[in-house]
Amino acid sequence: MRWTEGLIAVDWGTTNRRAYRIDANGNCADEFEDGKGVMSVAAGGFPEAVAEIRRRLGDLPLLLAGMVGSNRGWKEAPYVPCPAGMDELVKALVWPGEREAIVPGVSFIGNGRADVMRGEEVQLLGAVAAGSVDPMGMVCHPGTHNKWVTLRHGKIAEFRTVMTGELFSLLKDHSILSDLLQEHVEAGDAFKEGARYALNDDALSADLFMVRARVLLGQAKKEDATSYASGLLIGSDVRIGLATPTSAQIHVVGRPELTRLYAAAVAEAGRDVVEIDGEKCFLAGIQEIAKRIG
Amino acid sequence: MRWTEGLIAVDWGTTNRRAYRIDANGNCADEFEDGKGVMSVAAGGFPEAVAEIRRRLGDLPLLLAGMVGSNRGWKEAPYVPCPAGMDELVKALVWPGEREAIVPGVSFIGNGRADVMRGEEVQLLGAVAAGSVDPMGMVCHPGTHNKWVTLRHGKIAEFRTVMTGELFSLLKDHSILSDLLQEHVEAGDAFKEGARYALNDDALSADLFMVRARVLLGQAKKEDATSYASGLLIGSDVRIGLATPTSAQIHVVGRPELTRLYAAAVAEAGRDVVEIDGEKCFLAGIQEIAKRIG
Repeated sequence: MRWTEGLIAVDWGTTNRRAYRIDANGNCADEFEDGKGVMSVAAGGFPEAVAEIRRRLGDLPLLLAGMVGSNRGWKEAPYVPCPAGMDELVKALVWPGEREAIVPGVSFIGNGRADVMRGEEVQLLGAVAAGSVDPMGMVCHPGTHNKWVTLRHGKIAEFRTVMTGELFSLLKDHSILSDLLQEHVEAGDAFKEGARYALNDDALSADLFMVRARVLLGQAKKEDATSYASGLLIGSDVRIGLATPTSAQIHVVGRPELTRLYAAAVAEAGRDVVEIDGEKCFLAGIQEIAKRIG
Repeated sequence: MRWTEGLIAVDWGTTNRRAYRIDANGNCADEFEDGKGVMSVAAGGFPEAVAEIRRRLGDLPLLLAGMVGSNRGWKEAPYVPCPAGMDELVKALVWPGEREAIVPGVSFIGNGRADVMRGEEVQLLGAVAAGSVDPMGMVCHPGTHNKWVTLRHGKIAEFRTVMTGELFSLLKDHSILSDLLQEHVEAGDAFKEGARYALNDDALSADLFMVRARVLLGQAKKEDATSYASGLLIGSDVRIGLATPTSAQIHVVGRPELTRLYAAAVAEAGRDVVEIDGEKCFLAGIQEIAKRIG
């Protein structure tokens, strides 16, 4: 392994970034998160933004993942087509300098569809490397844009993006449903009712209007509307994901507050589900990449 | 007919209002449209807002429809449950004064669903009164919230709202797709491709992400993205509407720039479709109500 002194791993998204110092033994020794996402860094500002990370965490090599590799990031790291495993990612690393590498995203074209991911691939293949998911299984990775990923022999064979998280934010912040979507989402009865409805229906853009109509007509309590709406959105998402046949257990990888909701909806669909902490998978993925850089 | 001197008809929505002076012969003699929707009128401000309409169009009786009858409007006109025809609307008129009547909205509860409309009922039953639609047929009424309406014996028997127009606006103004959705929508090849895809798929919240992925991966031209996205949204909407079995021709009632797009998507589904100007239906509906006031 080239980087014997340890390294800094950065999950650098559109609106924020998380950076971790990983010591020579592979342990996370320090970390921080801030709002300096890719969109807030001016053109030409990445060398300074990277130098700032080193001032905070140490003068170590950097492995960067996420939107920092997009055409709005530091240096574009072109998408690696499916099937994509660790070897394919490592081969396609983009090197802005000798001590900085950017992990590429992954693309899928097939079945009449086109899709992209950027950032999730490290967590997904990290989960494979850590032995946390079935290398022939199905992984759900919720976030702003949820990914349903079919693994084959430990590689990303195919995936589909569902815009659930972003749709929920749009509806909460700007829509006619806005005043009904300000409560905290709980995976309780209202959420499960919404999830069951959307698992058995295929009309999300109609079902969402019910959130309002049910309250207006006295069919549901206003305070349950946020969880019910979240249930509709996530239930619809799970219906889409499970349309790809798999006999495997579903692994949900991501932030615990989201995996909890997706796990509840998958359980409503009568399927076995396991939740996995996405941060651990990210660190496992970064270390696997570092090892393979050689 | 009580109102022999003519009347003023107002289609008073959330964000704007359209007012028409209808003379004693039933002809539209004058009209205006402005941005004084219900949301811009302060509590207690409706008598003055109504007086202003009379100053512009004449001191005539007023028939008001739309959100002016909601709990944020002048006076609440409770929803009339389905089946709702002209008689039911006229019986449930709400009278803020002797020369002003508000038309109620319509509600549907059934098949595990709940739904409401307010304003569209005048156009729909106006289309029936004018003989423009089959009284046992199916009507599609696009707008911010599209309504799919099943008529039975000239009454609104059942309906379903699809939030297509609002979703398009949210995606255009606030989403990751925003920069791809600024072109004018045309019912051309890109629109039809999107419509066909969504007519045969049942995963709108996934399909929408393709708008971006196709451009990123060189599968589609950026300048076609707006029409393709509109095709996905309206195609999905039409799939939902046509899930209610009907052998009838589909009548699309509304503003011509919208009925054109819906008619194109319905045609892609292989169904006969007729476009009808919603403004004419509104005026026909208002005059039918005025006649029945007696």
